[in-house]
Order: sequence, then structure tokens, then C-alpha cells
Amino acid sequence: MVKLTVLYGPPADPAAFEHYYANTHLALAAKIPNTRRVEASKVVATPGAAEAPYHRIAELWFDSADHMEAALGSEAGRAAVEDIGTFASGGATVVVSAVD
Amino acid sequence: MVKLTVLYGPPADPAAFEHYYANTHLALAAKIPNTRRVEASKVVATPGAAEAPYHRIAELWFDSADHMEAALGSEAGRAAVEDIGTFASGGATVVVSAVD
Repeated sequence: MVKLTVLYGPPADPAAFEHYYANTHLALAAKIPNTRRVEASKVVATPGAAEAPYHRIAELWFDSADHMEAALGSEAGRAAVEDIGTFASGGATVVVSAVD
Repeated sequence: MVKLTVLYGPPADPAAFEHYYANTHLALAAKIPNTRRVEASKVVATPGAAEAPYHRIAELWFDSADHMEAALGSEAGRAAVEDIGTFASGGATVVVSAVD
């Protein structure tokens, strides 16, 4: 299993981010094919850090790296990835990991 | 549902990190009570970044923030958290998020 983790940095306008994320981005992300599981979460605490390094986490699980690459290369995948630049004013760190 | 995400920075000696993680830390982490789900993964790619910001991700899901706090305050929870300082030579970023 391969996991795609998107760590959204603190946005300039958190309310605007949340509005766009809930009303536009999630619908685009839901169209990404091949996902085994999808989870979105909002950061509520960062123990040991003065400021939260991230505002939100989104994770998508795929059966394999090939499944993930096909998903991100699809029309829906490209649209969702491109959309991130529209609203993620605090940037987004993307990490791909192989689940043990 | 509340998720605890541990993002391990690149260690000075990845092989030593992996050995300790697999042979010592996971056994300690497995004793943490109240977990609904636990997932460990190894970073394999960071699209768009020159260097991987993280080496590993560990995630623990709990029913609530109270369950999480009780877990981390337990003897097993404290031992697992303290152990991170033993082997995480690249540091560890800890993020708590509320799952949508």
C-alpha cells in the first residue's frame, strides 16, 4: 500500500481556505481514481511546537505506486493537483510513503 | 476520530534508525493503549521537493482527544514518546488532527 500525504501549511486566510476546501477542492479530490481510502483532517495541536507547521492533512491510499501514478496522471488527478495552487496560500508539502 | 501524526526528519544514519525502529521502537509503540488504528510508513518520494523533508511517518488513530491524552499519559505512552529521543536523530514533528 502506498500513501500520498499532503501537508498544507498555515494559510493566509484560514476561513477562506476552509470554505474553498470544503466547497470546491474536496469535490475535485473525490474524483481521483484508484483510491483505496481517503482521509482529510484539520490540525488541532502540535505538541512541543510554538506554531503549528501545518493547517490540514489530506491522505490518499493506493494499492501500489503504479496505481497512484495512474491516478495522479488522470484528468481528475491533474485537476485536483492543479487546484491546490488555487487555495493553498501557505503551501503544501507532498510526501509519498510505502506503508509497512 | 483524532489522528496523531509523527513525521520523522531525515536521520543521520538511516540504517541505524531503521534497525532501532523495527527492533525496539515498534514494540514500545504497540503497547500504547486506546489506539483504533496504527500505521507506519517509509517515505519513498517527495514530488516537487529536492530533498525529502521526512524519512518516516507514523500515525495513530484514537476515538477522541481524551482517549489520545489518556494513551499518551499512560506508562506505555510515555515510554514510547520518550524513546523517540533515543533514535530520531533527524527530529520528529508531531501533529494532532481532527479527522473530518
